[in-house]
Amino acid sequence: MKSFIGKYPFEVETFQVDYTGGLSFGFLANKMLIIAGNHANERGFGKERLSADGKTWVLSRLAIEIDEYPNEGDTYYVETWVEGVNRLFTSRNFRVLSHDGRVLGHARSTWALIDVVTRQPADLTTLYDGELAAYSCDEPCPIQGVGRTRVKATEPTGEFMPLYCDIDYNGHLNSVKYIEHMLNELPLEIFRTHTIHRVEVSYSLECFYRERLSVFIDKRDDAHEYDVEIRKEAGEVACRAKIMFGASPVPFRS
Amino acid sequence: MKSFIGKYPFEVETFQVDYTGGLSFGFLANKMLIIAGNHANERGFGKERLSADGKTWVLSRLAIEIDEYPNEGDTYYVETWVEGVNRLFTSRNFRVLSHDGRVLGHARSTWALIDVVTRQPADLTTLYDGELAAYSCDEPCPIQGVGRTRVKATEPTGEFMPLYCDIDYNGHLNSVKYIEHMLNELPLEIFRTHTIHRVEVSYSLECFYRERLSVFIDKRDDAHEYDVEIRKEAGEVACRAKIMFGASPVPFRS
Repeated sequence: MKSFIGKYPFEVETFQVDYTGGLSFGFLANKMLIIAGNHANERGFGKERLSADGKTWVLSRLAIEIDEYPNEGDTYYVETWVEGVNRLFTSRNFRVLSHDGRVLGHARSTWALIDVVTRQPADLTTLYDGELAAYSCDEPCPIQGVGRTRVKATEPTGEFMPLYCDIDYNGHLNSVKYIEHMLNELPLEIFRTHTIHRVEVSYSLECFYRERLSVFIDKRDDAHEYDVEIRKEAGEVACRAKIMFGASPVPFRS
Repeated sequence: MKSFIGKYPFEVETFQVDYTGGLSFGFLANKMLIIAGNHANERGFGKERLSADGKTWVLSRLAIEIDEYPNEGDTYYVETWVEGVNRLFTSRNFRVLSHDGRVLGHARSTWALIDVVTRQPADLTTLYDGELAAYSCDEPCPIQGVGRTRVKATEPTGEFMPLYCDIDYNGHLNSVKYIEHMLNELPLEIFRTHTIHRVEVSYSLECFYRERLSVFIDKRDDAHEYDVEIRKEAGEVACRAKIMFGASPVPFRS
Protein backbone atom coordinates (compact mmCIF):
# COMPACT_ATOMS: atom_id res chain seq x y z
CA MET A 1 0.00 0.00 0.00
CA LYS A 2 1.32 3.44 -0.89
CA SER A 3 1.69 6.29 1.60
CA PHE A 4 -1.50 8.15 2.39
CA ILE A 5 -0.15 11.59 1.60
CA GLY A 6 1.26 12.30 -1.85
CA LYS A 7 3.74 15.17 -2.22
CA TYR A 8 4.47 16.74 -5.61
CA PRO A 9 7.09 19.38 -6.46
CA PHE A 10 6.47 22.24 -8.90
CA GLU A 11 8.25 25.34 -10.05
CA VAL A 12 6.56 28.65 -10.84
CA GLU A 13 7.44 29.16 -14.50
CA THR A 14 7.23 32.36 -16.53
CA PHE A 15 3.71 32.72 -17.93
CA GLN A 16 2.28 30.93 -14.89
CA VAL A 17 2.25 34.20 -13.01
CA ASP A 18 -0.58 36.65 -13.18
CA TYR A 19 0.12 40.25 -13.70
CA THR A 20 1.17 40.88 -10.11
CA GLY A 21 4.12 38.49 -10.56
CA GLY A 22 2.80 35.77 -8.22
CA LEU A 23 1.66 32.30 -9.25
CA SER A 24 -1.72 32.69 -10.90
CA PHE A 25 -4.64 31.26 -8.97
CA GLY A 26 -5.85 29.30 -11.99
CA PHE A 27 -2.49 27.57 -12.40
CA LEU A 28 -2.39 26.61 -8.73
CA ALA A 29 -5.92 25.20 -8.90
CA ASN A 30 -4.90 23.27 -12.02
CA LYS A 31 -1.92 21.78 -10.19
CA MET A 32 -4.25 20.58 -7.43
CA LEU A 33 -6.54 18.84 -9.89
CA ILE A 34 -3.53 17.33 -11.67
CA ILE A 35 -2.08 15.81 -8.52
CA ALA A 36 -5.53 14.65 -7.40
CA GLY A 37 -5.46 12.56 -10.56
CA ASN A 38 -1.89 11.42 -10.05
CA HIS A 39 -2.47 10.49 -6.42
CA ALA A 40 -5.58 8.50 -7.34
CA ASN A 41 -3.85 6.79 -10.26
CA GLU A 42 -0.87 5.78 -8.15
CA ARG A 43 -3.25 4.16 -5.65
CA GLY A 44 -5.39 2.29 -8.15
CA PHE A 45 -8.51 4.43 -8.33
CA GLY A 46 -7.48 6.82 -11.06
CA LYS A 47 -9.03 7.86 -14.33
CA GLU A 48 -7.62 5.03 -16.45
CA ARG A 49 -8.94 2.13 -14.42
CA LEU A 50 -12.25 3.85 -13.81
CA SER A 51 -12.82 4.83 -17.41
CA ALA A 52 -12.27 1.20 -18.39
CA ASP A 53 -15.22 0.54 -16.07
CA GLY A 54 -17.29 3.32 -17.63
CA LYS A 55 -16.94 5.65 -14.66
CA THR A 56 -15.46 9.08 -14.18
CA TRP A 57 -14.66 11.41 -11.26
CA VAL A 58 -16.70 14.61 -11.11
CA LEU A 59 -15.60 17.58 -9.04
CA SER A 60 -18.49 18.79 -6.91
CA ARG A 61 -17.02 21.34 -4.50
CA LEU A 62 -13.67 23.03 -4.15
CA ALA A 63 -12.41 25.45 -1.47
CA ILE A 64 -8.90 26.88 -1.78
CA GLU A 65 -7.38 29.18 0.81
CA ILE A 66 -3.96 30.71 0.17
CA ASP A 67 -2.05 32.90 2.61
CA GLU A 68 1.01 33.43 0.47
CA TYR A 69 1.77 32.77 -3.21
CA PRO A 70 5.09 31.48 -4.50
CA ASN A 71 6.75 33.78 -7.03
CA GLU A 72 8.29 33.19 -10.42
CA GLY A 73 11.23 30.79 -10.19
CA ASP A 74 10.21 29.46 -6.75
CA THR A 75 9.92 25.76 -6.08
CA TYR A 76 6.79 24.79 -4.16
CA TYR A 77 5.06 21.58 -3.15
CA VAL A 78 1.46 20.47 -3.17
CA GLU A 79 0.41 17.58 -0.94
CA THR A 80 -2.86 15.73 -1.16
CA TRP A 81 -4.68 13.00 0.72
CA VAL A 82 -8.12 11.44 0.99
CA GLU A 83 -9.97 12.63 4.08
CA GLY A 84 -12.99 10.41 3.96
CA VAL A 85 -15.38 8.43 1.85
CA ASN A 86 -19.11 8.08 2.13
CA ARG A 87 -21.60 6.55 -0.25
CA LEU A 88 -21.88 9.42 -2.72
CA PHE A 89 -18.86 11.60 -2.08
CA THR A 90 -15.21 11.44 -1.23
CA SER A 91 -13.31 14.37 0.19
CA ARG A 92 -9.73 15.09 -0.76
CA ASN A 93 -7.59 17.75 0.89
CA PHE A 94 -4.50 19.65 -0.16
CA ARG A 95 -1.66 21.57 1.43
CA VAL A 96 0.66 23.98 -0.39
CA LEU A 97 4.20 24.30 0.95
CA SER A 98 7.09 26.61 0.14
CA HIS A 99 10.47 25.13 -0.88
CA ASP A 100 11.53 25.19 2.78
CA GLY A 101 8.37 23.63 4.15
CA ARG A 102 6.40 26.70 5.18
CA VAL A 103 2.64 26.20 4.80
CA LEU A 104 1.30 28.59 2.15
CA GLY A 105 -2.27 27.36 1.93
CA HIS A 106 -4.79 24.54 1.94
CA ALA A 107 -7.69 23.24 -0.07
CA ARG A 108 -10.67 20.94 0.35
CA SER A 109 -12.44 19.19 -2.50
CA THR A 110 -15.43 16.89 -2.82
CA TRP A 111 -15.85 14.40 -5.64
CA ALA A 112 -18.51 12.03 -6.90
CA LEU A 113 -17.97 9.06 -9.17
CA ILE A 114 -20.52 8.79 -11.94
CA ASP A 115 -21.34 6.37 -14.69
CA VAL A 116 -20.39 8.02 -17.99
CA VAL A 117 -23.56 6.79 -19.71
CA THR A 118 -26.31 6.91 -17.08
CA ARG A 119 -24.70 9.85 -15.15
CA GLN A 120 -25.77 8.00 -11.98
CA PRO A 121 -23.42 8.13 -8.97
CA ALA A 122 -21.59 5.00 -7.86
CA ASP A 123 -21.39 3.79 -4.26
CA LEU A 124 -17.90 4.79 -3.17
CA THR A 125 -17.80 2.71 0.02
CA THR A 126 -17.81 -0.51 -1.96
CA LEU A 127 -15.65 0.67 -4.89
CA TYR A 128 -12.97 -1.93 -5.65
CA ASP A 129 -13.64 -3.74 -2.36
CA GLY A 130 -13.23 -0.59 -0.30
CA GLU A 131 -9.81 0.27 -1.72
CA LEU A 132 -10.62 3.96 -1.80
CA ALA A 133 -11.94 4.02 1.77
CA ALA A 134 -8.78 2.30 2.96
CA TYR A 135 -6.81 5.39 1.99
CA SER A 136 -8.80 7.76 4.21
CA CYS A 137 -6.54 9.45 6.71
CA ASP A 138 -6.99 11.98 9.52
CA GLU A 139 -4.32 14.48 8.52
CA PRO A 140 -5.68 17.86 9.66
CA CYS A 141 -6.85 20.45 7.14
CA PRO A 142 -7.53 23.69 9.03
CA ILE A 143 -9.82 25.42 6.53
CA GLN A 144 -13.57 25.34 6.19
CA GLY A 145 -15.35 23.56 3.39
CA VAL A 146 -17.62 25.23 0.89
CA GLY A 147 -20.46 27.19 2.49
CA ARG A 148 -23.79 28.32 1.08
CA THR A 149 -23.89 31.20 -1.35
CA ARG A 150 -26.75 32.72 -3.27
CA VAL A 151 -26.40 35.67 -5.60
CA LYS A 152 -29.22 38.22 -5.70
CA ALA A 153 -28.01 40.22 -8.72
CA THR A 154 -30.44 40.11 -11.61
CA GLU A 155 -28.24 41.90 -14.14
CA PRO A 156 -25.17 40.03 -15.39
CA THR A 157 -21.75 41.63 -15.05
CA GLY A 158 -20.53 39.84 -18.15
CA GLU A 159 -21.16 37.01 -20.57
CA PHE A 160 -18.99 34.35 -22.14
CA MET A 161 -19.14 31.18 -24.21
CA PRO A 162 -16.88 28.19 -23.65
CA LEU A 163 -14.61 28.08 -26.72
CA TYR A 164 -12.05 25.59 -27.99
CA CYS A 165 -9.41 26.55 -25.43
CA ASP A 166 -11.89 26.27 -22.52
CA ILE A 167 -13.13 22.75 -23.04
CA ASP A 168 -11.68 19.42 -21.99
CA TYR A 169 -11.78 16.18 -23.94
CA ASN A 170 -15.34 15.53 -22.76
CA GLY A 171 -16.43 18.73 -24.52
CA HIS A 172 -17.26 20.34 -21.16
CA LEU A 173 -16.04 23.59 -19.69
CA ASN A 174 -12.91 22.68 -17.70
CA SER A 175 -13.35 23.01 -13.88
CA VAL A 176 -10.65 25.64 -13.53
CA LYS A 177 -12.04 27.66 -16.44
CA TYR A 178 -15.25 28.24 -14.47
CA ILE A 179 -13.06 29.98 -11.88
CA GLU A 180 -11.05 31.93 -14.45
CA HIS A 181 -14.20 33.22 -16.15
CA MET A 182 -15.54 34.39 -12.78
CA LEU A 183 -12.23 36.11 -11.93
CA ASN A 184 -12.31 37.79 -15.35
CA GLU A 185 -15.49 39.64 -14.37
CA LEU A 186 -14.17 41.11 -11.12
CA PRO A 187 -12.77 44.66 -11.23
CA LEU A 188 -9.11 44.50 -12.30
CA GLU A 189 -8.20 46.99 -9.59
CA ILE A 190 -8.79 44.40 -6.88
CA PHE A 191 -6.00 42.20 -8.29
CA ARG A 192 -3.67 45.18 -8.29
CA THR A 193 -4.13 45.90 -4.60
CA HIS A 194 -5.02 42.55 -3.04
CA THR A 195 -4.35 38.85 -3.45
CA ILE A 196 -6.97 36.14 -3.73
CA HIS A 197 -7.22 34.71 -0.23
CA ARG A 198 -9.99 32.16 -0.62
CA VAL A 199 -12.18 30.80 -3.39
CA GLU A 200 -14.99 28.33 -2.83
CA VAL A 201 -16.92 26.81 -5.68
CA SER A 202 -19.97 24.55 -5.94
CA TYR A 203 -20.31 22.99 -9.36
CA SER A 204 -23.90 22.21 -10.34
CA LEU A 205 -24.16 21.81 -14.10
CA GLU A 206 -21.82 20.93 -16.93
CA CYS A 207 -21.35 23.71 -19.49
CA PHE A 208 -20.84 23.09 -23.17
CA TYR A 209 -19.06 24.48 -26.22
CA ARG A 210 -20.46 27.87 -27.35
CA GLU A 211 -23.25 27.74 -24.78
CA ARG A 212 -24.20 31.29 -23.74
CA LEU A 213 -23.30 31.81 -20.08
CA SER A 214 -23.64 34.85 -17.85
CA VAL A 215 -21.78 35.88 -14.73
CA PHE A 216 -23.73 37.48 -11.86
CA ILE A 217 -21.93 39.12 -8.96
CA ASP A 218 -22.92 40.43 -5.51
CA LYS A 219 -20.21 42.44 -3.78
CA ARG A 220 -20.29 42.47 0.01
CA ASP A 221 -20.14 46.13 1.08
CA ASP A 222 -18.04 45.55 4.14
CA ALA A 223 -15.32 43.38 2.66
CA HIS A 224 -13.39 42.52 -0.46
CA GLU A 225 -15.65 39.58 -0.97
CA TYR A 226 -17.68 38.63 -4.00
CA ASP A 227 -20.46 36.08 -4.40
CA VAL A 228 -20.58 34.92 -7.99
CA GLU A 229 -22.83 32.70 -10.08
CA ILE A 230 -22.51 31.44 -13.61
CA ARG A 231 -25.99 30.99 -15.04
CA LYS A 232 -27.23 29.35 -18.20
CA GLU A 233 -29.52 31.15 -20.63
CA ALA A 234 -32.71 29.83 -19.00
CA GLY A 235 -31.45 30.97 -15.61
CA GLU A 236 -30.25 27.66 -14.12
CA VAL A 237 -27.18 28.09 -11.95
CA ALA A 238 -24.20 26.20 -13.38
CA CYS A 239 -21.84 27.13 -10.59
CA ARG A 240 -21.78 29.23 -7.40
CA ALA A 241 -18.68 30.72 -5.86
CA LYS A 242 -17.41 32.98 -3.12
CA ILE A 243 -14.20 34.86 -3.84
CA MET A 244 -12.43 36.61 -0.96
CA PHE A 245 -9.41 38.85 -1.26
CA GLY A 246 -6.73 39.23 1.38
CA ALA A 247 -6.47 42.49 3.26
CA SER A 248 -2.77 42.89 2.65
CA PRO A 249 -1.91 44.64 -0.58
CA VAL A 250 0.80 43.19 -2.81
CA PRO A 251 3.37 45.32 -4.59
CA PHE A 252 2.37 45.84 -8.20
CA ARG A 253 5.14 44.94 -10.62
CA SER A 254 5.15 47.25 -13.64
CA MET B 1 30.50 29.58 -21.59
CA LYS B 2 27.39 27.41 -21.50
CA SER B 3 26.43 24.98 -24.25
CA PHE B 4 24.74 26.56 -27.25
CA ILE B 5 21.70 24.30 -27.21
CA GLY B 6 19.53 24.12 -24.10
CA LYS B 7 17.40 21.01 -23.57
CA TYR B 8 14.43 21.01 -21.19
CA PRO B 9 12.27 18.05 -20.14
CA PHE B 10 8.50 18.26 -19.70
CA GLU B 11 5.63 15.93 -19.04
CA VAL B 12 2.18 16.25 -20.56
CA GLU B 13 -0.05 16.68 -17.51
CA THR B 14 -3.81 16.27 -17.27
CA PHE B 15 -5.47 19.57 -18.19
CA GLN B 16 -2.64 20.38 -20.59
CA VAL B 17 -4.35 18.32 -23.26
CA ASP B 18 -6.97 19.71 -25.56
CA TYR B 19 -10.12 17.83 -26.15
CA THR B 20 -8.52 15.34 -28.56
CA GLY B 21 -6.26 14.09 -25.74
CA GLY B 22 -3.00 15.41 -27.21
CA LEU B 23 -0.88 18.20 -25.72
CA SER B 24 -2.68 21.46 -26.41
CA PHE B 25 -0.98 23.75 -28.89
CA GLY B 26 -1.18 26.69 -26.50
CA PHE B 27 0.62 24.77 -23.76
CA LEU B 28 3.38 23.73 -26.16
CA ALA B 29 3.82 27.31 -27.37
CA ASN B 30 3.95 28.42 -23.73
CA LYS B 31 6.70 25.91 -22.98
CA MET B 32 8.74 27.30 -25.87
CA LEU B 33 8.46 30.84 -24.56
CA ILE B 34 9.31 29.64 -21.05
CA ILE B 35 12.51 27.90 -22.11
CA ALA B 36 13.44 30.83 -24.35
CA GLY B 37 13.49 32.83 -21.13
CA ASN B 38 15.35 30.15 -19.19
CA HIS B 39 17.95 29.66 -21.93
CA ALA B 40 18.55 33.42 -22.13
CA ASN B 41 18.73 33.78 -18.34
CA GLU B 42 21.22 30.94 -18.01
CA ARG B 43 23.46 32.67 -20.56
CA GLY B 44 23.29 36.15 -19.09
CA PHE B 45 20.86 37.90 -21.42
CA GLY B 46 17.61 37.09 -19.65
CA LYS B 47 14.76 39.16 -18.39
CA GLU B 48 16.23 39.94 -14.98
CA ARG B 49 19.48 41.49 -16.13
CA LEU B 50 17.78 43.28 -19.02
CA SER B 51 14.97 44.70 -16.93
CA ALA B 52 17.56 46.12 -14.54
CA ASP B 53 18.83 47.97 -17.62
CA GLY B 54 15.32 49.11 -18.57
CA LYS B 55 15.03 46.74 -21.53
CA THR B 56 12.69 43.90 -22.39
CA TRP B 57 12.46 41.20 -25.06
CA VAL B 58 9.52 41.48 -27.44
CA LEU B 59 8.35 38.57 -29.56
CA SER B 60 7.96 39.69 -33.15
CA ARG B 61 7.39 36.50 -35.17
CA LEU B 62 6.78 32.87 -34.29
CA ALA B 63 6.40 29.82 -36.56
CA ILE B 64 5.70 26.43 -34.99
CA GLU B 65 5.43 23.23 -37.01
CA ILE B 66 4.43 20.01 -35.28
CA ASP B 67 4.25 16.60 -36.94
CA GLU B 68 3.22 14.65 -33.87
CA TYR B 69 1.94 15.65 -30.44
CA PRO B 70 2.93 13.93 -27.22
CA ASN B 71 -0.03 12.53 -25.29
CA GLU B 72 -1.07 12.76 -21.65
CA GLY B 73 1.57 11.24 -19.39
CA ASP B 74 4.32 11.37 -22.04
CA THR B 75 7.68 12.91 -21.32
CA TYR B 76 8.96 15.18 -24.07
CA TYR B 77 11.84 17.59 -24.55
CA VAL B 78 12.09 21.03 -26.03
CA GLU B 79 15.49 22.27 -27.22
CA THR B 80 16.33 25.85 -28.09
CA TRP B 81 19.27 27.80 -29.46
CA VAL B 82 20.09 31.20 -30.92
CA GLU B 83 20.42 31.08 -34.69
CA GLY B 84 21.65 34.56 -35.38
CA VAL B 85 21.74 38.15 -34.31
CA ASN B 86 21.53 41.29 -36.35
CA ARG B 87 21.11 44.88 -35.31
CA LEU B 88 17.36 44.83 -34.64
CA PHE B 89 16.40 41.18 -34.32
CA THR B 90 17.65 37.90 -32.98
CA SER B 91 16.30 34.56 -34.14
CA ARG B 92 15.86 31.66 -31.79
CA ASN B 93 14.92 28.16 -32.93
CA PHE B 94 13.32 25.20 -31.18
CA ARG B 95 13.10 21.44 -31.60
CA VAL B 96 10.52 19.21 -29.89
CA LEU B 97 11.61 15.63 -29.15
CA SER B 98 9.78 12.58 -27.86
CA HIS B 99 11.07 10.78 -24.74
CA ASP B 100 13.16 8.51 -27.00
CA GLY B 101 14.62 11.27 -29.13
CA ARG B 102 12.26 11.24 -32.11
CA VAL B 103 11.80 14.70 -33.61
CA LEU B 104 8.17 15.80 -33.21
CA GLY B 105 8.44 19.36 -34.48
CA HIS B 106 10.34 22.62 -34.76
CA ALA B 107 9.83 26.31 -34.30
CA ARG B 108 11.43 29.57 -35.33
CA SER B 109 11.05 32.83 -33.46
CA THR B 110 12.26 36.40 -33.92
CA TRP B 111 12.73 38.84 -31.07
CA ALA B 112 13.57 42.49 -30.64
CA LEU B 113 14.92 44.13 -27.52
CA ILE B 114 13.23 47.39 -26.65
CA ASP B 115 13.63 50.10 -24.09
CA VAL B 116 10.68 49.86 -21.70
CA VAL B 117 10.23 53.64 -21.60
CA THR B 118 11.04 54.89 -25.11
CA ARG B 119 9.89 51.62 -26.84
CA GLN B 120 12.92 52.08 -29.13
CA PRO B 121 14.81 48.95 -30.21
CA ALA B 122 18.31 48.34 -28.91
CA ASP B 123 21.27 47.32 -31.09
CA LEU B 124 21.66 43.61 -30.44
CA THR B 125 25.07 43.20 -32.04
CA THR B 126 26.70 45.32 -29.34
CA LEU B 127 24.56 44.12 -26.40
CA TYR B 128 26.78 43.28 -23.44
CA ASP B 129 29.92 43.34 -25.61
CA GLY B 130 28.47 40.90 -28.14
CA GLU B 131 27.60 38.23 -25.54
CA LEU B 132 24.35 37.42 -27.32
CA ALA B 133 25.97 37.16 -30.76
CA ALA B 134 28.60 34.81 -29.34
CA TYR B 135 25.85 32.25 -28.71
CA SER B 136 24.73 32.09 -32.35
CA CYS B 137 25.05 28.57 -33.68
CA ASP B 138 24.39 26.85 -36.98
CA GLU B 139 22.24 23.97 -35.76
CA PRO B 140 19.80 23.27 -38.63
CA CYS B 141 16.11 24.09 -38.29
CA PRO B 142 14.30 22.60 -41.30
CA ILE B 143 11.14 24.71 -41.26
CA GLN B 144 10.35 27.97 -42.95
CA GLY B 145 10.03 31.23 -41.11
CA VAL B 146 6.90 33.35 -41.03
CA GLY B 147 5.62 34.29 -44.49
CA ARG B 148 3.36 37.09 -45.61
CA THR B 149 -0.34 36.88 -44.87
CA ARG B 150 -3.12 39.36 -45.48
CA VAL B 151 -6.75 38.69 -44.63
CA LYS B 152 -9.41 40.01 -47.00
CA ALA B 153 -12.45 39.30 -44.81
CA THR B 154 -14.33 42.43 -43.86
CA GLU B 155 -16.77 40.79 -41.43
CA PRO B 156 -15.34 39.52 -38.16
CA THR B 157 -15.86 35.88 -37.19
CA GLY B 158 -15.82 36.77 -33.52
CA GLU B 159 -14.85 39.36 -30.95
CA PHE B 160 -13.10 39.26 -27.62
CA MET B 161 -11.60 41.47 -24.94
CA PRO B 162 -8.40 40.64 -23.04
CA LEU B 163 -9.53 39.96 -19.46
CA TYR B 164 -7.69 39.34 -16.21
CA CYS B 165 -6.65 35.80 -17.14
CA ASP B 166 -5.32 36.89 -20.56
CA ILE B 167 -2.89 39.56 -19.50
CA ASP B 168 0.69 39.35 -18.30
CA TYR B 169 2.32 41.52 -15.66
CA ASN B 170 2.83 44.29 -18.20
CA GLY B 171 -0.93 44.51 -18.61
CA HIS B 172 -0.65 43.29 -22.22
CA LEU B 173 -2.36 40.38 -23.91
CA ASN B 174 0.02 37.42 -23.43
CA SER B 175 1.68 36.23 -26.70
CA VAL B 176 0.16 32.76 -26.50
CA LYS B 177 -3.30 34.16 -25.78
CA TYR B 178 -3.30 35.85 -29.20
CA ILE B 179 -2.97 32.34 -30.66
CA GLU B 180 -5.60 30.82 -28.37
CA HIS B 181 -8.13 33.54 -29.21
CA MET B 182 -7.56 32.89 -32.92
CA LEU B 183 -7.94 29.12 -32.47
CA ASN B 184 -11.16 29.76 -30.54
CA GLU B 185 -12.74 31.27 -33.66
CA LEU B 186 -12.01 28.35 -35.99
CA PRO B 187 -14.75 25.75 -36.49
CA LEU B 188 -14.54 23.17 -33.69
CA GLU B 189 -14.98 20.38 -36.21
CA ILE B 190 -11.50 20.93 -37.61
CA PHE B 191 -9.95 20.06 -34.22
CA ARG B 192 -11.99 16.88 -34.12
CA THR B 193 -10.70 15.59 -37.42
CA HIS B 194 -7.27 17.16 -37.83
CA THR B 195 -4.29 18.29 -35.78
CA ILE B 196 -2.68 21.69 -35.95
CA HIS B 197 0.33 21.20 -38.20
CA ARG B 198 1.73 24.70 -38.42
CA VAL B 199 1.00 28.12 -36.96
CA GLU B 200 2.83 31.26 -37.98
CA VAL B 201 2.24 34.56 -36.25
CA SER B 202 3.43 38.12 -36.82
CA TYR B 203 2.85 40.32 -33.81
CA SER B 204 2.34 43.99 -34.69
CA LEU B 205 0.65 45.78 -31.80
CA GLU B 206 0.28 45.27 -28.09
CA CYS B 207 -3.29 44.66 -26.93
CA PHE B 208 -4.64 45.88 -23.62
CA TYR B 209 -7.09 44.95 -20.88
CA ARG B 210 -10.73 45.12 -22.01
CA GLU B 211 -9.78 46.53 -25.40
CA ARG B 212 -12.32 45.46 -28.01
CA LEU B 213 -10.66 43.13 -30.52
CA SER B 214 -12.07 41.32 -33.54
CA VAL B 215 -10.93 38.18 -35.31
CA PHE B 216 -11.08 38.07 -39.13
CA ILE B 217 -10.58 34.81 -41.00
CA ASP B 218 -10.01 33.79 -44.64
CA LYS B 219 -10.27 30.08 -45.28
CA ARG B 220 -8.28 28.74 -48.21
CA ASP B 221 -10.72 26.69 -50.32
CA ASP B 222 -8.25 24.02 -51.31
CA ALA B 223 -6.74 23.24 -47.94
CA HIS B 224 -7.37 23.15 -44.21
CA GLU B 225 -5.61 26.44 -43.94
CA TYR B 226 -6.79 29.65 -42.35
CA ASP B 227 -5.39 33.16 -42.56
CA VAL B 228 -6.36 35.07 -39.46
CA GLU B 229 -6.02 38.64 -38.22
CA ILE B 230 -6.79 40.22 -34.89
CA ARG B 231 -7.77 43.82 -35.48
CA LYS B 232 -8.34 46.71 -33.12
CA GLU B 233 -11.51 48.76 -33.15
CA ALA B 234 -10.15 51.35 -35.58
CA GLY B 235 -9.06 48.56 -37.92
CA GLU B 236 -5.31 48.41 -37.21
CA VAL B 237 -3.96 44.86 -37.39
CA ALA B 238 -2.63 43.73 -34.01
CA CYS B 239 -1.50 40.33 -35.24
CA ARG B 240 -1.54 38.23 -38.41
CA ALA B 241 -1.39 34.45 -38.51
CA LYS B 242 -1.58 31.45 -40.77
CA ILE B 243 -2.95 28.27 -39.21
CA MET B 244 -2.55 24.99 -41.12
CA PHE B 245 -4.04 21.66 -40.13
CA GLY B 246 -2.46 18.31 -40.88
CA ALA B 247 -4.13 16.02 -43.38
CA SER B 248 -4.11 13.04 -41.05
CA PRO B 249 -7.10 12.79 -38.77
CA VAL B 250 -6.59 11.98 -35.12
CA PRO B 251 -8.79 9.62 -33.16
CA PHE B 252 -11.35 11.59 -31.19
CA ARG B 253 -11.43 10.58 -27.55
CA SER B 254 -14.92 10.73 -26.16
